[in-house]
Amino acid sequence: MAELVVALDFPAADVAVDMAGRLRGTAPWMKVGLELFCAAGPDVVRAVADLGFRVFLDLKFHDIPNTVRGAVRSAVRSGADMVNIHLMGGERMARAAVEGLHEGAQTTGSVPLLFGVTVLTSTAQGELPGISTDIGEYAASLAASGAAWGLNGVVCSGYEVESIKKRCGASFLCLTPGIRPGGGAGGDDQRRVMTPAQAVSAGSDYLVVGRPVTGAADPAAAARAIMAEMAAVRR
Amino acid sequence: MAELVVALDFPAADVAVDMAGRLRGTAPWMKVGLELFCAAGPDVVRAVADLGFRVFLDLKFHDIPNTVRGAVRSAVRSGADMVNIHLMGGERMARAAVEGLHEGAQTTGSVPLLFGVTVLTSTAQGELPGISTDIGEYAASLAASGAAWGLNGVVCSGYEVESIKKRCGASFLCLTPGIRPGGGAGGDDQRRVMTPAQAVSAGSDYLVVGRPVTGAADPAAAARAIMAEMAAVRR
Repeated sequence: MAELVVALDFPAADVAVDMAGRLRGTAPWMKVGLELFCAAGPDVVRAVADLGFRVFLDLKFHDIPNTVRGAVRSAVRSGADMVNIHLMGGERMARAAVEGLHEGAQTTGSVPLLFGVTVLTSTAQGELPGISTDIGEYAASLAASGAAWGLNGVVCSGYEVESIKKRCGASFLCLTPGIRPGGGAGGDDQRRVMTPAQAVSAGSDYLVVGRPVTGAADPAAAARAIMAEMAAVRR
Repeated sequence: MAELVVALDFPAADVAVDMAGRLRGTAPWMKVGLELFCAAGPDVVRAVADLGFRVFLDLKFHDIPNTVRGAVRSAVRSGADMVNIHLMGGERMARAAVEGLHEGAQTTGSVPLLFGVTVLTSTAQGELPGISTDIGEYAASLAASGAAWGLNGVVCSGYEVESIKKRCGASFLCLTPGIRPGGGAGGDDQRRVMTPAQAVSAGSDYLVVGRPVTGAADPAAAARAIMAEMAAVRR
C-alpha cells in the first residue's frame, strides 16, 4: 500500500513542527529537507519523530565515501527513518552509506531505509553536465546500480517507476516527489509531475506532497483527501 | 597568499569545538562537514565562528534549484563564510545557489564565498556513472561552467589547479582537499593528494588539512608547521 510523505518545506523549526502537529493522524511520514535542516539541525528530526511520525531526512548526500558513511551514521542517530544519497556518487560511496546505516542503527535499534537519488526530478534532458544519454535510461541504469549496491530503493519520477520495478524487482522501493493533486505544473522546479492516483497506478511506494498539503486552508483535510485518492486505486 | 583550512572531522560538537579552541591563533579557517553538521546542526557553525574563525560549511548541496536556494540561505544565516554545491547539479541549481547566497547575506551583512565541487577527490577514472571522458577534463569543464554561473571558485585536486586557473582566470579561487604533509596516501578516501608546498606551488588558494593536524600530538604546532611550509613557497 503506497504511503504519503508530507514535505515540511519551511525555513524554521517552529513553523515546521507546528504544521506536523496539525497533521497528526493523517500522513504517516514527514520529510525534512535541506533548507529546514540547515536552519534547525537534528533537533527538528527528533521533534517531528516525537509527534509520532516516521521521518524522511532528505539531504541527498554526495561526498567522499568516508564522509557519507559518517553523515548517514549521524542522520540515523538523529532519529531519521529514511535517508538518501546521490547514486552519481558511485559504488564506493553507496556501499559506505550502507555501512553507516547499520552503524547508526546499532545506537537506535532499527535500520532505516536508504534511498538513492537517480536524476533530480527538476532536471530536464540536456541539463546533466557531461551526460548525453537519454535521461530516463540514465536514471534506470543508476537505479539498477543502487539495487546492486544494497540500497532499499530510489527517488524517481513517477514516469520511471515501471521500468525501474521491471529492472530491479517489485520489492525495490520507489519514492516519487513532485506529486500534485490534479496534476499540472505547480510553478516550481518539478518538471515531471503526477497526480496521486497516477503515481500509485504507476507502482510508486511513497508519494511526496508539499505545498498542496502544507499550503492548503485545511492541511489535514488536504492530506486525508490525497490518502483517499491513493487508497481508491486498485493495483 | 594561500590559507589553511582545518577540517573538524568529528562526530560531535563538543570534541570539534574543543579542537577549534586549541587551534586559536593558527589557521584562519575551520571546516564543518556533513558528519559533524548532521550530528550538531547550525549551532556548531556559530560556536566555531564565535572563537574567531572563518567557517567553511562543506555540505556539497545537490538538490532541486529551489531547495538549494533555501539551503544556501539557511547556511549563510548560520554564520558560514564559505559554502559549496555540486556543479553536476547544473546551471539552474547553481544560479539558484547564488541567489540564496545574496538573500542570506541580507541578514548577515556579508556575502560568503560560494564554491563548486567538480569531481570528488576520492573519485578515480571510471567511477563516475555515465561519464567516460577524462576525469581531469570533465572537472575543468565543470569548473569553467561554475565560473560562468557566478561562483567564486571550485573544490578540486591540486593536480587540476593549473588548468582551471588557465581556463577560468587567476581570480577564480581553488580550494584543495586531501593535503598531506609529506604527501603519500593517508589510507583514507583521497586519491589525488599533495603536500602543502606542492599545492601552494600549483596555485591553490585554500588548503584543507584534517587528520594530520587534528590527529597530531600537538595540533597547534602541526598547524603552524604547515603554515610555515606554505609561506616558504615563492609564487
